Amino acid sequence: MTDQTPAPDNHTDDDEFLPRRELLDRIDAAIDAGDAGLLNALLEPMHGADIADIIERLVPARRRVFLTLYSGEIDGEILSEIADSIRDEVIDQLPPEVVAEAVREMDSDDVVDLVEDMDEPDRQEILAALDATDRAAVQQSLAYPEYSAGRLMQSEVVTAPEHWTVGEAVAFLQSEDWLPEQFYHIVLVDPRRHPLGYVTLGRLLASAHATLLRDITEDSFRTVSAFAEEADVAYAFNQYHLISAPVVDRDDRLVGIITIDDAMAVLDEEHEEDILRLAGVGDESSLTDSVMQTARQRVPWLATNILTAVAAASVIGLFEGSIAQLVALAVLMPIVASMGGNAGTQTLTVAVRGLATKGLTKDNSVRVIRREAVVGLLNGAIFGLAIGTVTYLWFGSFGLGAVIGLAMIINLTIAALAGILVPLTLNKLGADPALASPTFVTTVTDVVGFFAFLGLATVMLL
Amino acid sequence: MTDQTPAPDNHTDDDEFLPRRELLDRIDAAIDAGDAGLLNALLEPMHGADIADIIERLVPARRRVFLTLYSGEIDGEILSEIADSIRDEVIDQLPPEVVAEAVREMDSDDVVDLVEDMDEPDRQEILAALDATDRAAVQQSLAYPEYSAGRLMQSEVVTAPEHWTVGEAVAFLQSEDWLPEQFYHIVLVDPRRHPLGYVTLGRLLASAHATLLRDITEDSFRTVSAFAEEADVAYAFNQYHLISAPVVDRDDRLVGIITIDDAMAVLDEEHEEDILRLAGVGDESSLTDSVMQTARQRVPWLATNILTAVAAASVIGLFEGSIAQLVALAVLMPIVASMGGNAGTQTLTVAVRGLATKGLTKDNSVRVIRREAVVGLLNGAIFGLAIGTVTYLWFGSFGLGAVIGLAMIINLTIAALAGILVPLTLNKLGADPALASPTFVTTVTDVVGFFAFLGLATVMLL
Repeated sequence: MTDQTPAPDNHTDDDEFLPRRELLDRIDAAIDAGDAGLLNALLEPMHGADIADIIERLVPARRRVFLTLYSGEIDGEILSEIADSIRDEVIDQLPPEVVAEAVREMDSDDVVDLVEDMDEPDRQEILAALDATDRAAVQQSLAYPEYSAGRLMQSEVVTAPEHWTVGEAVAFLQSEDWLPEQFYHIVLVDPRRHPLGYVTLGRLLASAHATLLRDITEDSFRTVSAFAEEADVAYAFNQYHLISAPVVDRDDRLVGIITIDDAMAVLDEEHEEDILRLAGVGDESSLTDSVMQTARQRVPWLATNILTAVAAASVIGLFEGSIAQLVALAVLMPIVASMGGNAGTQTLTVAVRGLATKGLTKDNSVRVIRREAVVGLLNGAIFGLAIGTVTYLWFGSFGLGAVIGLAMIINLTIAALAGILVPLTLNKLGADPALASPTFVTTVTDVVGFFAFLGLATVMLL
Repeated sequence: MTDQTPAPDNHTDDDEFLPRRELLDRIDAAIDAGDAGLLNALLEPMHGADIADIIERLVPARRRVFLTLYSGEIDGEILSEIADSIRDEVIDQLPPEVVAEAVREMDSDDVVDLVEDMDEPDRQEILAALDATDRAAVQQSLAYPEYSAGRLMQSEVVTAPEHWTVGEAVAFLQSEDWLPEQFYHIVLVDPRRHPLGYVTLGRLLASAHATLLRDITEDSFRTVSAFAEEADVAYAFNQYHLISAPVVDRDDRLVGIITIDDAMAVLDEEHEEDILRLAGVGDESSLTDSVMQTARQRVPWLATNILTAVAAASVIGLFEGSIAQLVALAVLMPIVASMGGNAGTQTLTVAVRGLATKGLTKDNSVRVIRREAVVGLLNGAIFGLAIGTVTYLWFGSFGLGAVIGLAMIINLTIAALAGILVPLTLNKLGADPALASPTFVTTVTDVVGFFAFLGLATVMLL
């Protein structure tokens, strides 16, 4: 459709953004040789986030050697990028003055992220390294609830009085000797620091000096309460294509600003948490965890599951007599339970995502419940007919085919209802639907699957 | 820890960012009454993204009436926010001149997103509405592969020659009568349009007019190949806290720029796709789909699952004789299979996420495989001992307890290996591990679970 079709590109590969394998081997070798100079030379061109990734991936013994060799180079950027799960360990191994220097370089929101999970003594030690203004900013953030906008914001905001002109704002920026590293807007405030609007730097640069700032504010302007949940903040950034959002306290006064890169990180974490929770893997799970940590994280889910599996088995136990009379029942019963589990998981996942993305709300839940129930019934009929036919051909019994078909319809309908009602109920109760729903739903589909199939068979066939 | 603890906030609730229920009811009423004036008045204060959400949620019949009443107000912002699944339907119902006007307002990347899935005649109709420059930009983007950086970029970039001073750049911005709506950097280019670095607008504003642009460029600068996959681009934005990234062709020449809001949208979609694929729900699945669409989307996964369930059942069929002799086997066998399925899903999910976030790569896959195998063995031992004990107490048979314990160890170890090896293999073959892995893994855990338990019981007990 165009004459400028580019040829395929040979440079792109999956690992484009990854440190090369050879480089990692050389880093390992430098650590093993205790060669600090070589290590510095290898890491010098790398981004702090990539150095943090390398630190995360080292086996613990090598990590300790690495931190001794490289401690002088660990700065605020690297420290703020290291995963929570090993950060305490890293900090403990660094000389206090290195940590203090790194913390002084960090934005207030990164310091908050660093210290919020620390014990009080460790936290005080970090805070002591900051100057009074920065310490006050961090303490103000820490006073807001965990996972709130107040914890996510940085307190450094560039503001201007509402009556300023473009020229006055430009002169102010020129004269100011301290400005945040990243800022995209100037926030207009009234004398009581209520934010009134914002002006993008692009608009500021393109406008005549006599223009009033209030005449070139953006339509997209909206503030965020410091008490808003960070997940809701991330949603707002994504929904409204925000780049930064001023944060206000209960009196609507400006207390900080959230920028899109932090909102993007929250969105990423929220998704990750949902996926891992739906699969029954602990939130903190990462590929850098040790065998013992990993095994321990997975035990709670498996322990819950073994209880529900035993409960489902005891339902089967009620029908031992029937199975003894007709062994085909034992052969077929897992099919009904398994299909129910899968259909329930499908509905459940759509429901959990709907709740997370605010697509599933009070005003359409009844419609979605009805839709899911009809879908369950419909797919139950399709697969009931299919498995009934297979069963008839396999075991030559029309009755057995009818029983498994009927059980399939019942179980897929119940699976759909459980898949939508369980997460809605948990959400209403204030629990995270991604965390607890899968267990509830598969318990329902196992119990109903076995009970419907074996019960119908007992009544109709024996 | 501070004396300024804020009191809990009463204004925040879950629905902070949602159109209120009453408002939605009034919109429904206005549609039913055919009252275009009221509808306009109700929607006037709303953001285009929220209006798009409302359009998505209307039942199809009401949506048609809505589009008739409101067609004059549908602009580029609303149109680009409407979900892909209903956008074609919406466009078909709008007068061609409304669509043409909306498209003219859109950035080139949004037009690309709009037309890339259209048939050729529809696409040509949209492109005809654009002026020549915009049309050329859209066609240039469309020449790059689907899901590439070239499709994601906008072609409107603010550039400056490398030898310019801050004063020259500021004068240029002042004199330019067209500038992109959102831009955060000025990209420095050489005479052949190779990007050399970028300057943030904040830095530009804060610097003296005589300063050379090349002296105030950002360290974070990196370009993206137009052929790079959009998922990799989103990863780079998140990893390196980028705000915008210049896009280059094969000759390293600047062809466009990607901004973080588009990267955030890609990250969001990629995650959503992973979650839905892991649960066997079609990619396009949304809460606005009809019953028939939903049922159809879920059929392929359920159809695959019924085949694997029948395969697992036929493994049980091999041991009908054993079950007839000892019915307790039928009662217990789903426990082994179910635990294997859960353990496999845990490993699988961690592996799929590790691949997506580039935490699992060639250089650590052997270590992760070993870790997962040991974790599987360890948890197999823990839960094998537990279920062995329960079985002994339940059925009074030491032999049966030993068999189920041993089968559990075998199945949880195999589950761990399947959970990591299946996604790694699929990834190597170029398939999406999130899409196909769950079926493979649960088939393995069902078959191995039944075979190990019933086989061991047949050999050891009967």
